[in-house]
Amino acid sequence: MNLEELREATRRQMPDRRWRHTLGVVDSAVELAKKYGGDIGKAELAALLHDYAKAWPVDRQAQIIRDQGMPAELLDYDKELWHAPIGAWAVREEHGIADEEVLDAIRYHTSGRERMTLLDRIVCLADYIEPGRDFPGVDRIRRLAEQDLTEALIAGLDSTIAYLLEKSRKIFPLTVVARNSLIEERNAHRTGG
Amino acid sequence: MNLEELREATRRQMPDRRWRHTLGVVDSAVELAKKYGGDIGKAELAALLHDYAKAWPVDRQAQIIRDQGMPAELLDYDKELWHAPIGAWAVREEHGIADEEVLDAIRYHTSGRERMTLLDRIVCLADYIEPGRDFPGVDRIRRLAEQDLTEALIAGLDSTIAYLLEKSRKIFPLTVVARNSLIEERNAHRTGG
Repeated sequence: MNLEELREATRRQMPDRRWRHTLGVVDSAVELAKKYGGDIGKAELAALLHDYAKAWPVDRQAQIIRDQGMPAELLDYDKELWHAPIGAWAVREEHGIADEEVLDAIRYHTSGRERMTLLDRIVCLADYIEPGRDFPGVDRIRRLAEQDLTEALIAGLDSTIAYLLEKSRKIFPLTVVARNSLIEERNAHRTGG
Repeated sequence: MNLEELREATRRQMPDRRWRHTLGVVDSAVELAKKYGGDIGKAELAALLHDYAKAWPVDRQAQIIRDQGMPAELLDYDKELWHAPIGAWAVREEHGIADEEVLDAIRYHTSGRERMTLLDRIVCLADYIEPGRDFPGVDRIRRLAEQDLTEALIAGLDSTIAYLLEKSRKIFPLTVVARNSLIEERNAHRTGG
């Protein structure tokens, strides 16, 4: 399957609004990869596929989490988190995507994880800042993305956690672990450690 | 050792300002225990001892964490977290306090933990709302404490997490776990589950 066929297959998984978002994430991810020395082809591919399962029915998503032995604790957290590991599973199953770096970037694009790779960071940040996004603080994150990938990603995760605080909703612990890991790295750089 | 001797021993561990805070936490904890059906004697004791090690030199605290096999990850987080497990250890060592409920309430008064006991909640919340406290949002937490122990405690943990976001500091994962656990319980009650 070539990239054009993969694009069409991906487009068929989602409504137009989500597809426009996907194209925005592809653009932003490619830009970030150029700016920060990431693999442009992998960034494009992971961004294209990151929301592959986002519009799938929630019942089907829950069933896949159970059937495929994904972390069961996912089911205790926001449904918005489910599509990421499911997307990674689906694009391997349905399209034979086998690049673990790309699959991880899809798998962790919503939650983040400890010691995120450059590709993880690019896709996760692109998802926050693609041109169609509009939420409190997005412009600050876009400005940071011009200067410092890690700072911008910390600010993105901050915005997620602040949103969940405001809504009195649970916070997925892995997101806090991801943010802590980035802060530790940032602080080590600052002190020359 | 009677309670009066224990008070004097505790007072000797800290400067006057911290002692005044301790007396405030005792008052608030006793009040909360009366209001929410907690054990008044245990609330008083745990509150009296909660900051036993707070003013101890940080080097000594770090050494105790290492020597006593406390979770080493503590050393990667804010020093403000250390005195709680060290306090629980110290009052057992130095004064023979052996009531596990009281020791747990001391141990987890800063971080919280999953499925906090009533005594845990009383001491943790009293620490947020004692009369000497003054931080953004404290009056809202005090008002909530009049009506709902769990809601007030969630608001207290929210204020801690929001503060760490604002300061771009790491968040101790157990605090998020504690908050998630309280939110789950609150939501289950709301839906009658």
